[in-house]
Amino acid sequence: MIQIRRLSSSDIDFQEELRSLLSFEISLDDEIDRTVIHILNQIRKYGDEALLELTRRFDNLDITRIDQVELPRNQWQSALEALSRDQREALEQAASHIHLYHEKQLAQSWDYVEPDGTRLGQKITALDRVGLYVPGGKAAYPSSVLMNAIPARVAGVNELIMVTPTPGGEKNPLVLAAAAICEVDRVFTIGGAQAIAALAYGTATIPKVDKIVGPGNAYVATAKRHVFGEVGIDMLAGPSEILVICDGKTDPDWIAMDLFSQAEHDEQAQSILLCPDETFLDTVAKSMARLINTLPRREVIRTSLENRGALIKVRDLEEACLIANRIAPEHLELSVDQPEQWVDSIRHAGAIFLGRYTCEALGDYCAGPNHVLPTSGTARFSSPLGVYDFQKRTSLIQVSAEGASRLGKIASILAKGEGLEAHARSAEFRYR
Amino acid sequence: MIQIRRLSSSDIDFQEELRSLLSFEISLDDEIDRTVIHILNQIRKYGDEALLELTRRFDNLDITRIDQVELPRNQWQSALEALSRDQREALEQAASHIHLYHEKQLAQSWDYVEPDGTRLGQKITALDRVGLYVPGGKAAYPSSVLMNAIPARVAGVNELIMVTPTPGGEKNPLVLAAAAICEVDRVFTIGGAQAIAALAYGTATIPKVDKIVGPGNAYVATAKRHVFGEVGIDMLAGPSEILVICDGKTDPDWIAMDLFSQAEHDEQAQSILLCPDETFLDTVAKSMARLINTLPRREVIRTSLENRGALIKVRDLEEACLIANRIAPEHLELSVDQPEQWVDSIRHAGAIFLGRYTCEALGDYCAGPNHVLPTSGTARFSSPLGVYDFQKRTSLIQVSAEGASRLGKIASILAKGEGLEAHARSAEFRYR
Repeated sequence: MIQIRRLSSSDIDFQEELRSLLSFEISLDDEIDRTVIHILNQIRKYGDEALLELTRRFDNLDITRIDQVELPRNQWQSALEALSRDQREALEQAASHIHLYHEKQLAQSWDYVEPDGTRLGQKITALDRVGLYVPGGKAAYPSSVLMNAIPARVAGVNELIMVTPTPGGEKNPLVLAAAAICEVDRVFTIGGAQAIAALAYGTATIPKVDKIVGPGNAYVATAKRHVFGEVGIDMLAGPSEILVICDGKTDPDWIAMDLFSQAEHDEQAQSILLCPDETFLDTVAKSMARLINTLPRREVIRTSLENRGALIKVRDLEEACLIANRIAPEHLELSVDQPEQWVDSIRHAGAIFLGRYTCEALGDYCAGPNHVLPTSGTARFSSPLGVYDFQKRTSLIQVSAEGASRLGKIASILAKGEGLEAHARSAEFRYR
Repeated sequence: MIQIRRLSSSDIDFQEELRSLLSFEISLDDEIDRTVIHILNQIRKYGDEALLELTRRFDNLDITRIDQVELPRNQWQSALEALSRDQREALEQAASHIHLYHEKQLAQSWDYVEPDGTRLGQKITALDRVGLYVPGGKAAYPSSVLMNAIPARVAGVNELIMVTPTPGGEKNPLVLAAAAICEVDRVFTIGGAQAIAALAYGTATIPKVDKIVGPGNAYVATAKRHVFGEVGIDMLAGPSEILVICDGKTDPDWIAMDLFSQAEHDEQAQSILLCPDETFLDTVAKSMARLINTLPRREVIRTSLENRGALIKVRDLEEACLIANRIAPEHLELSVDQPEQWVDSIRHAGAIFLGRYTCEALGDYCAGPNHVLPTSGTARFSSPLGVYDFQKRTSLIQVSAEGASRLGKIASILAKGEGLEAHARSAEFRYR
């Protein structure tokens, strides 16, 4: 058996139990912080020289010149060509679906003209150059390359720089193949805080970028937090989460495996099931007990479910939606009849998976939407990674001679109210 | 005379001079950081009790119960009714233009159905509750209330909570009148890091919000940086900047006053003029020398221009646009003939003001676009404040039975490639 928490929304202290279940402190580690700041300063001051030294040391790479960290295009292309036909087709089809979906997110410039000839609008442009961080080692996910690179490509980003550490020189062929499929522009085998610093400040070898996206360990996340402002960054991800709302009529093995698919990510991942049918919760618990032993990552799954998982009996599906809004989950499965009737009740979620056939894994890899989603309740105010993260807006204001008099009078009154006389005069000069 | 820097793009060390001109270190003050963290923890632990104590101390307010910090609606309404007719009309007209422009930014939910019945889309929702910080004292700008509150209102934010300190009990009637015009929901007279903490964590009296927007001093900015993640925040603003590109044919007094209108904000503000005509730069310098003494904020203007301003001779307007992209200014005036022909050459700017009649002041107050704009070169990767900052997106994925087989096969192959067996099995369970 898995010792997973069982709760009921009718428990007297349910709100407190839920709060405690959801609480997750991102520990700010002083030691990591100091190390990262030191690395950032080294790269800022000494550029390539520091980057070479740190890469040799942390990645145990036997290189003598920093330009050896650039991986030429033919190496990614060979990685792609070396894939099995199944793997190549799967990656290409996933890329194609992701591309199609993200094209719908492309924003267009717009403007309008007022009766006096004043034209107002907003111009949309892509970022010039983006850095894509891809972790090395066990968390090296080719799907993550697709999910970060394709929205940038669709936005029209001119240059996409991928960095990925290769500890001991070991390269991940799937990651390189994914880079080839996404047609990134350059690949460097650097990682950690030193890679983030190189992208943020630029060195003679590594081009300075405008934004850095992609997941990473605590050093990478801390470095991103520090360089924010110098460059843009994507959101800082917490542990991954799934909330499943089930009416009790889905195959319990499906639900059990869906909960596992989240729990297998890491020990901090969170899987929660809400169901009005207590008996179904028992059945799912039995399915889990039976299925867990068939899985290679069973120890991670067990730890994650026992520490952070929960099976929760709710009064009805209305109440389940209220709890979902309280949680604002990264992934929400609506494994119920006519799931679309509940969508309006869900105000906060990164992604909603509707219907019994829509397991999260399909969205993680290939349905089309992005798998980089807001975690830890941040879906209350943030969105999936998208094309909009690689586009930016510029206001356009073209005031006609007539408009300058009309608007100038308003501006002058308001500026004087704020004690800003030069603002007022600048407007008044343009009166006819 | 004003001792403003004169540069030429043909100077041998121009790139270095430009770099030095633009460099501005946001000093991370350890002392402020420690004070802010202490205040955040106090509010988190002791809620209203700490808020009362800190508000009494920092704002010198003689209150005994924390609910005394709520300003009832009739007080803002009276502030609006007490305005002069000119001021009221100016505020209302500005609000109406801002509203009209921001309505064009409203994003709509969308979806599409694939041939096998799989439906994909994105659902757009407004944030539930937003906190709006309005500084007290000299930087209390009613225009800032309009620019922050109206996009939230247009987005459909359900509840707008305004906080503004009233040191010694002194209230700013223009700010309150602006709050009445924007129909904010509640107003609390609290400020500083304690107000940010109260909004981010919630207390018995102050409702917890999902995002905090609005400008503030170093304590407020530091507090916002720390609570980011717990709630959303808007960008962290650096000093305000204007870049004017002029062909030398605009009235030099107009250009001088435009540069002043930026410089009068504060001593760190930056005003730069680019022009291919050296003589015109001389003329503008003469206009500045003559006009500065007519202005109440002349000391701020002088300090700002002498420390951070520049008049720069460029080769031609093409080169001016290249330099503009290098600077990525918050405000860019194109004071030239046929300004629209240059817009495509500008890739990075917060707002572009086209034509000789379009001074920045019109955009600051009432043309319609937002005056909260990316500073310090962050226009390379970020955008004006807008309705999109108060909306968020949720991916929608509804896979048909047929789609589950088609997509499941791709997901299974990719999941196995990443060593995530439970992901693969969760997809395989749904094969027909």
